[in-house]
Amino acid sequence: MKLGDGVEQAIHSVAMLSGLSADGVLSAAALAEFHGVSTSYLLKHLQALSGAGILQTVPGPRGGYRLARGADEITLLDVVLAVEGREPAFRCKEIRQRGPNPLPQRYMTRPCQINAAMLRAERAYRAELAKTTIAAVLGELAEQDMDGAVVARGCAFLEQHERKSS
Amino acid sequence: MKLGDGVEQAIHSVAMLSGLSADGVLSAAALAEFHGVSTSYLLKHLQALSGAGILQTVPGPRGGYRLARGADEITLLDVVLAVEGREPAFRCKEIRQRGPNPLPQRYMTRPCQINAAMLRAERAYRAELAKTTIAAVLGELAEQDMDGAVVARGCAFLEQHERKSS
Repeated sequence: MKLGDGVEQAIHSVAMLSGLSADGVLSAAALAEFHGVSTSYLLKHLQALSGAGILQTVPGPRGGYRLARGADEITLLDVVLAVEGREPAFRCKEIRQRGPNPLPQRYMTRPCQINAAMLRAERAYRAELAKTTIAAVLGELAEQDMDGAVVARGCAFLEQHERKSS
Repeated sequence: MKLGDGVEQAIHSVAMLSGLSADGVLSAAALAEFHGVSTSYLLKHLQALSGAGILQTVPGPRGGYRLARGADEITLLDVVLAVEGREPAFRCKEIRQRGPNPLPQRYMTRPCQINAAMLRAERAYRAELAKTTIAAVLGELAEQDMDGAVVARGCAFLEQHERKSS
């Protein structure tokens, strides 16, 4: 089981965008540069985040991305589902119904116990991700950022690259 | 995030093998036939289960697979980790350290808050999978198998295909 690299890039991007001023946006190229990743690859994930209503896309030459809602209203689960899709990790192929002696159709009214157990675990995973907002992650970061260097790093970059959309 | 099809096949195979008599084994070909899957693909997963100490491999022309320990001592987590590997789904690439202004090395003493949050969710997922044994899954199945047809289906196949290794 593996999450794509896009999840890490998307979470870091959302965290970065939360530092913008009210009318500011950041281009995909700037986000990609800051994180040292491919712009075209990141763009795909930024579009997924827009599609999921996590980011707003401001079009035009001074356009870019900004959060569509507060960082305290965006959970890690929101970002993971936007980037990876909403399907569960375990995708039951109903192999009970295959082979020389498939299970009769009347047993198919409820999910296989194996599928049910796997989905229970997935619910626990998602519930945990849903507990953590981007704002909470940034709060933890600030707590550990004793001399302010981590926050200063992001702020310096934003100051240089933020675009004012209005 | 997606688990490979091998997980479903491996769990069903382990469940099937739990129905063998004490000195019985089942060939990979028989397990593949019952589940209507490719023998070569299933073999890869059976070998992973053997490698993880979940199955025993009995060599020779009358050989095959059997459980290495009781179905009440094999959890879904054991099977998932055997087939999918032990690495977490979220694999932090430390993109904090990339780009034009990487985070200084002294901040690398503890994991990024994002990584820590993602790993918390993974622990919840694994804890849930670790709660469910193959025996428990089979117990739930038996409870719902009112007319015994599901169990009978497996038993009939085992009767025909079980090999006595001694």
